[in-house]
Amino acid sequence: MSEMLHPGATIGILGGGQLGRMLSVAASRLGFKCHIFEPGAEPPAGHVAHRVTTAGYDDAVALAEFAASVDVVTYEFENIPTEALDLIEATRAIRPGRRVLAISQDRIHEKSFVNEIGLATAPWAEVSDMASLEAAIAKIGTPAILKTTRLGYDGKGQARIMAPEDAPAALAAMEGATAVLEGFVDFSAEISVIAARGLDGSVACFDPGENVHKSGILHTTTVPARISEAQRTDAILIAARILNALDYVGVMGVELFVTPKGLLVNEIAPRVHNSGHWTQAGCTVDQFEQHIRAVAGWPLGDGSRYADVEMLNLIGDDVAMVPDLAKAPRTQIHLYGKAEAKPGRKMGHVNRVL
Amino acid sequence: MSEMLHPGATIGILGGGQLGRMLSVAASRLGFKCHIFEPGAEPPAGHVAHRVTTAGYDDAVALAEFAASVDVVTYEFENIPTEALDLIEATRAIRPGRRVLAISQDRIHEKSFVNEIGLATAPWAEVSDMASLEAAIAKIGTPAILKTTRLGYDGKGQARIMAPEDAPAALAAMEGATAVLEGFVDFSAEISVIAARGLDGSVACFDPGENVHKSGILHTTTVPARISEAQRTDAILIAARILNALDYVGVMGVELFVTPKGLLVNEIAPRVHNSGHWTQAGCTVDQFEQHIRAVAGWPLGDGSRYADVEMLNLIGDDVAMVPDLAKAPRTQIHLYGKAEAKPGRKMGHVNRVL
Repeated sequence: MSEMLHPGATIGILGGGQLGRMLSVAASRLGFKCHIFEPGAEPPAGHVAHRVTTAGYDDAVALAEFAASVDVVTYEFENIPTEALDLIEATRAIRPGRRVLAISQDRIHEKSFVNEIGLATAPWAEVSDMASLEAAIAKIGTPAILKTTRLGYDGKGQARIMAPEDAPAALAAMEGATAVLEGFVDFSAEISVIAARGLDGSVACFDPGENVHKSGILHTTTVPARISEAQRTDAILIAARILNALDYVGVMGVELFVTPKGLLVNEIAPRVHNSGHWTQAGCTVDQFEQHIRAVAGWPLGDGSRYADVEMLNLIGDDVAMVPDLAKAPRTQIHLYGKAEAKPGRKMGHVNRVL
Repeated sequence: MSEMLHPGATIGILGGGQLGRMLSVAASRLGFKCHIFEPGAEPPAGHVAHRVTTAGYDDAVALAEFAASVDVVTYEFENIPTEALDLIEATRAIRPGRRVLAISQDRIHEKSFVNEIGLATAPWAEVSDMASLEAAIAKIGTPAILKTTRLGYDGKGQARIMAPEDAPAALAAMEGATAVLEGFVDFSAEISVIAARGLDGSVACFDPGENVHKSGILHTTTVPARISEAQRTDAILIAARILNALDYVGVMGVELFVTPKGLLVNEIAPRVHNSGHWTQAGCTVDQFEQHIRAVAGWPLGDGSRYADVEMLNLIGDDVAMVPDLAKAPRTQIHLYGKAEAKPGRKMGHVNRVL
């Protein structure tokens, strides 16, 4: 491991939200400092970082200074402008690398890539206008869901098409952006594999968790997922295949649908993932440290699961539950230090050891 | 719990070493920011704190500004000058409170207090000159150990007296400071209880750990300690008695000798304690979060132990073991971000889940 970053080194993190916050804490356990780059003021990650740069992704000077001040760069979200990445990459390694960002920033690229490496997705078709939407509906059927290809997450930029007559309204909701129509899948569960791949190519996956969404936002993740041993193995093999095909370095969230015909890849996220927060209460090394280890060229840690855990997101006013949760046994609270509890805003999460 | 500090509040921590560092990380989990006050430059806690003040404990202006910027003050070491505490306490609550500091800053006060509340210590006597040292040796016998009453830790300010003729050299080593002679105790083990008391008076103790020292510095703590169920109960009752007698708020480390005649109190430390680091790998809520909860007026968390753990300190050059430890299964590494590995310096620790 000659490329192992030495304790005392600085890791640059693009994005200062709760994922950056928990990455920074994990990095401190390994003796690293973190420098956060974030356009917004008072980022949650800034409370536990050595340094914060408040600047936009179009600020070339700030980006260059940021890159010069760190030893390696990672990110907590995938929608970083290409120009910003170019500027940073001129002087510092970005891990995970550029290829996965190009893929995951665009749903069509992502689904094409997944299919090309032999993995199944829900049926999908590209939609750019009414004619292609009608053709897509004819091919895929309804119900289906229309999503913008870029920048959508947590239910934003999405419209359901329950019957062909919903098509015009759904298309209008895309506001002219290229979209993808996805067929509804008859799934019994959605599961996530939080997978890690080291700089040396080794792969380690956390035990798959089972996700429940509410209003398009992750509500709970429970481990173990209620799947068979064969499905568990399949899930891990799928994730490993994706990581290897991308020569990936870091942690990735791979969301899968469990269907009678096997596992379908729903979405990949080239970063630590909300559905992996349970690892903080169930493993010796959690997803945040695993990501930092990979990015820093360290061996991956032992992420074997030693407890059953339910992770519950605290969204918006859910934080009002904190005084009661604070008294509950076997309960670990994680708050993100956000000042205001807006509807739909992720304020924290709770890991309950079952 | 009307006095519960709200997420978003700031906790002031006196001292910026590794204990402050891990306290700051724990505070972030509950949504708090930390402001570190530390005379030394580049403190380890500063890497994960919202704010750092670099100033001496004699800097009244800096202390007043620090107090004004935080909601409550705690500390990571006990030897804070009285004048500094007076200045802070004029505007902000200090938790744990002043009484325990007055006691724990002076070995004679500490031992007197422990004996007064009906708990046993090793035989001891105050020593201020050769005459009182000879009288103490006559009363306690040899071997014995002479320690300065103030400011000593990790084997500093101590001299062994194996036979009466060692007395002059031992006294000289005290450099004129008042000292205490402690009789050697025939103990089978040294154990620690990491005990917490909330603002509401509730007490919760972590399972006692068994300590092994090397060259006067803690080497390993292992849980469970090899003690009987009755000894375990006794240990926890002793710790609870100390906390209640002091109307204590926060986490305290209580070191006990296991002897054929029962448990003797060796030392108390009014703060999170090195022998409680195992809680990071063995409990839903660790000692650092438990301390923050108490200081912030929150209910104490669930610190029940769910795993057997061995904590190993990484002292000085021990950090060279990190690349190998990083590959080991069931192993959690904690490094403190200290630049230079000096002999005797605590560089980090490792929790191995057994």
